[in-house]
Amino acid sequence: MPEHQRADARRNYARILAVAEEEVAARGAHASLEQIARTAGVGSATVRRHFPTRRALLEAVSRNRIEALAVRAHDLTGQGDSRDALLEWLDDVVAYSVSARGLAAALAHDGPVHENSCSAALEEAAGPLLHRAAQDGAVATDVTVADLITLVVGIVLATEHYSDPGTRATRLFRLAVAGLSPQN
Amino acid sequence: MPEHQRADARRNYARILAVAEEEVAARGAHASLEQIARTAGVGSATVRRHFPTRRALLEAVSRNRIEALAVRAHDLTGQGDSRDALLEWLDDVVAYSVSARGLAAALAHDGPVHENSCSAALEEAAGPLLHRAAQDGAVATDVTVADLITLVVGIVLATEHYSDPGTRATRLFRLAVAGLSPQN
Repeated sequence: MPEHQRADARRNYARILAVAEEEVAARGAHASLEQIARTAGVGSATVRRHFPTRRALLEAVSRNRIEALAVRAHDLTGQGDSRDALLEWLDDVVAYSVSARGLAAALAHDGPVHENSCSAALEEAAGPLLHRAAQDGAVATDVTVADLITLVVGIVLATEHYSDPGTRATRLFRLAVAGLSPQN
Repeated sequence: MPEHQRADARRNYARILAVAEEEVAARGAHASLEQIARTAGVGSATVRRHFPTRRALLEAVSRNRIEALAVRAHDLTGQGDSRDALLEWLDDVVAYSVSARGLAAALAHDGPVHENSCSAALEEAAGPLLHRAAQDGAVATDVTVADLITLVVGIVLATEHYSDPGTRATRLFRLAVAGLSPQN
């Protein structure tokens, strides 16, 4: 492919992705691919060439956010109290997932969290954060990053139709952190 | 409508509902209405006359299960330890929701739990069960039946693509009951 065609393709990709981010944030995982093509000023075939499946599009939309969460996990590892650090990171995962409705869908859609490239990145990034909290006795040792993310994803999916999804999701997540009915 | 036409309509309704229950259990909330019509041996228009929307169909499919859960809540109220009784009922909600994938969808789809006729019935039935557990200090007093059901629905939605959704959902629910990281 000549250089100017490659440059065109890169510009199209970036434009489609930017439009897709807005559409997915506004309308969730079922955002219309045709609408994305129209707004980006390209044909549906061009959208499909860059993103052969809806899942490919959702994962691309989520990738920036996922990377930011991975960086955050690295920054928090080794900082302050291990329980506080883990919970602060999980609060970020809740907030990101609520604001990008496509993220929760991409994480849960079509397969378990551990078979999913988005959450594989999060698992790797947050492993040390969880490990430190488990060593300090703040989390049971058999809890995995996949457990935590699956729980967050579920809470976000179950509250996304509420008028105040962020408040509801945060409230339910706090409940799960404290325990619905902990034995003491 | 003459009596024999009404009898035909009732038989059609019962047949469509029975087929829909199987399809939703096998394929989840996105079961094909056309497939349901074909298997039931009626036209799509007949399915739409009885169930104008997918949500109406999902709610009808779930109604029997919801009624069984409501009866169970009544039976458990006043029996044995209040925490055990509540958790036993919630285990039933998890199991029912996993086995009828349409149930979780009907509960979460298109609206918050408290605006949903299925979960309104569950809230009323389980109110006394939760109230007794809260009085005994086994559950925080500000926790609502809607909170509990939303959490269960989320966990079921987030695990429904796993190869062993029942095991995964039960594991995550236990985690939320005990607390991810309870302060003590």
